[in-house]
Amino acid sequence: MHKTLVTGGAGFIGSHVARQLWAMKHHVVILDDLSGGLLENIPTGVDFVKGSILDHQLLAELFEKYQFDYVYHLAAYAAEGLSHFIKRFNYQNNLTGSVNLLNECIKHEVKCFVFVSSIAVYGSQQTPMTEDMIPQPEDPYGIAKYAFEMELKASKEMFGQDYIIFRPHNVYGENQNLNDPYRNVLGIFMNQILNGEPLTIYGDGSQTRAFSYIDEVAPVIARSVENPSAYGEIFNIGSDHTCSVRDLAQMIQVAFDSQATIHFLDERKEVHHAFCAHDKLKAYFAPVSSVSLQEGIVRMAGWAKKAERKASYKFDEIEIYKNLPSNWKLD
Amino acid sequence: MHKTLVTGGAGFIGSHVARQLWAMKHHVVILDDLSGGLLENIPTGVDFVKGSILDHQLLAELFEKYQFDYVYHLAAYAAEGLSHFIKRFNYQNNLTGSVNLLNECIKHEVKCFVFVSSIAVYGSQQTPMTEDMIPQPEDPYGIAKYAFEMELKASKEMFGQDYIIFRPHNVYGENQNLNDPYRNVLGIFMNQILNGEPLTIYGDGSQTRAFSYIDEVAPVIARSVENPSAYGEIFNIGSDHTCSVRDLAQMIQVAFDSQATIHFLDERKEVHHAFCAHDKLKAYFAPVSSVSLQEGIVRMAGWAKKAERKASYKFDEIEIYKNLPSNWKLD
Ligand SMILES: NC(=O)c1ccc[n+]([C@@H]2O[C@H](COP(=O)([O-])OP(=O)(O)OC[C@H]3O[C@@H](n4cnc5c(N)ncnc54)[C@H](O)[C@@H]3O)[C@@H](O)[C@H]2O)c1
Ligand SMILES: NC(=O)c1ccc[n+]([C@@H]2O[C@H](COP(=O)([O-])OP(=O)(O)OC[C@H]3O[C@@H](n4cnc5c(N)ncnc54)[C@H](O)[C@@H]3O)[C@@H](O)[C@H]2O)c1
Repeated sequence: MHKTLVTGGAGFIGSHVARQLWAMKHHVVILDDLSGGLLENIPTGVDFVKGSILDHQLLAELFEKYQFDYVYHLAAYAAEGLSHFIKRFNYQNNLTGSVNLLNECIKHEVKCFVFVSSIAVYGSQQTPMTEDMIPQPEDPYGIAKYAFEMELKASKEMFGQDYIIFRPHNVYGENQNLNDPYRNVLGIFMNQILNGEPLTIYGDGSQTRAFSYIDEVAPVIARSVENPSAYGEIFNIGSDHTCSVRDLAQMIQVAFDSQATIHFLDERKEVHHAFCAHDKLKAYFAPVSSVSLQEGIVRMAGWAKKAERKASYKFDEIEIYKNLPSNWKLD
Repeated sequence: MHKTLVTGGAGFIGSHVARQLWAMKHHVVILDDLSGGLLENIPTGVDFVKGSILDHQLLAELFEKYQFDYVYHLAAYAAEGLSHFIKRFNYQNNLTGSVNLLNECIKHEVKCFVFVSSIAVYGSQQTPMTEDMIPQPEDPYGIAKYAFEMELKASKEMFGQDYIIFRPHNVYGENQNLNDPYRNVLGIFMNQILNGEPLTIYGDGSQTRAFSYIDEVAPVIARSVENPSAYGEIFNIGSDHTCSVRDLAQMIQVAFDSQATIHFLDERKEVHHAFCAHDKLKAYFAPVSSVSLQEGIVRMAGWAKKAERKASYKFDEIEIYKNLPSNWKLD
């Protein structure tokens, strides 16, 4: 039986990956500090350890105890826009934390390190973005992800540590955090509707994203380690279809049968159009059935209506207040 | 009077930059934790604060107290080859530490942040390496330097923080650390000769570097902030002439009139030929008189013979022992 660690497994994507791995008969251990994840997301049948990837002593103990075959690394604070204002936290949590994990993988000769990176590494390059482009990230979140991608490559050269890197694209679905005001526009919109608030859009809402339903993403990530030809490779993963944030707002209003108004905020610095090619992914991995944005929204909305309502989370260690969007300030 | 912070000013390059700035009539404050630097390197006339860039509270106090106009950031642990084996320390000290400093510069509207990066950011690209190439670093040291370069660019976009980046090339000269076995081949060779030991070379010594004398580097860095057209720009800095490590060993033997033998060690993973173009630097900055490698070695040797002898320093928090060159192991 494969022993497999999933960091961030109490979070959105991690919980789905962990569930898949469990279904694939891995012995799954989730490590999550619950800074963004929820206990109720943890799938049945897996071990759960509450703790942080920053705690390298804890990591050393876990690796000693379990002797993991595979590591799926999803723990991160993924608020891209906010990352400019929490630089130190960003690099500590997302880069140093990842490096702690990698150290243990190298020492314990883990067979494959699956890293969930992000399309944020590309920056505002020509679309469609492809894996052969040299990344040029433009914000701390993307820089930390890219630095760790380079670190994995260096560690394969120096120590033979195998890895697979996925760069997902705006994933959405059940278990997504609904009360984080800094990120994931579907969760923000749904939360606003459920709270009877107007939907907030930065700029005119013409920015486009390829919103990707979780079931198109998590199973591929989970099964990837069974394909050694993918070791040492990088894959974009997500939908081929883009949608503007404005159209997305309308689709969500329809799904909730809501008359919520739209409140347009000042534009913020972000990549305007993001869209990736997925030819490489399709060449390496078996296809999964695709789910349209409309259908995905209906499924997520069904879950969101029943999900427990939580107070909006505010990150309380802002490092720089200069230029911070006013709706991100602590009250 | 300009108030200017020099981090790493008790180190080799930093001490020369600080001395230049003092001669330019800046009020200079050096911050150094003395992990690699020496009190005796600190030039007269400057303030010295012992402390680490990892101590962000100390940084906040210093910036509040002095209201710096300029920051020259040279503090780093610069052992490129060792960085594979001390990944966590590398990213903490060299990246998170730099980010701590940048946070304060943004908050206090420092006029220009001068960052001493490294040609390690290039990786093994085509030579001569030029500033318009997209970096592809291959080791943790180079990755951390490049991540911070990207961070500076993002901070200029988001916060208007000005900066100048220098990428020096194997600098050598007076005040260089002679007892660090992990780096700076001139210091290692001189130390070995002074200790009556054989000179050690990784591989066959055919790897080439453009060894650059400190007086060709430090004055340009110090004066750079007076040239606002250089703000937001990146510059290679160093010698145009390359020399193999083997030839270097011979030149040093001559300078010391030494019959020391050469001991060839296993090749280690490193860039084989490194050599940069400096056209951009010459287009922006007034020339400084050049010093030949022979002349530079004679000057450094004169200093080294009189320098206080110290026990060889060993880094005692190795994180990964796998593939660690045997002469780097703790006894
Ligand atoms: N959701 C997306 O659209 C998307 C897109 C690209 C990449 N990603 C990446 O996928 C991964 C998962 O994202 P998600 O959307 O599921 O976010 P999420 O916040 O739901 O999950 C992240 C989990 O990591 C945990 N975590 C954070 N810091 C930790 C630490 N120091 N130690 C232990 N656990 C920690 C959180 O508690 C949370 O459960 C992240 O690495 C993210 O960067 C997500
Ligand atoms: N010497 C070279 O050839 C060369 C080449 C390229 C880049 N660089 C860069 O130039 C800078 C200076 O290098 P150097 O050769 O003078 O090395 P050095 O070791 O002599 O100087 C570095 C100084 O930084 C200090 N320091 C380290 N970590 C610190 C921390 N956390 N807080 C405060 N101080 C800290 C050390 O005590 C030391 O005095 C470094 O950033 C290095 O990466 C050097």
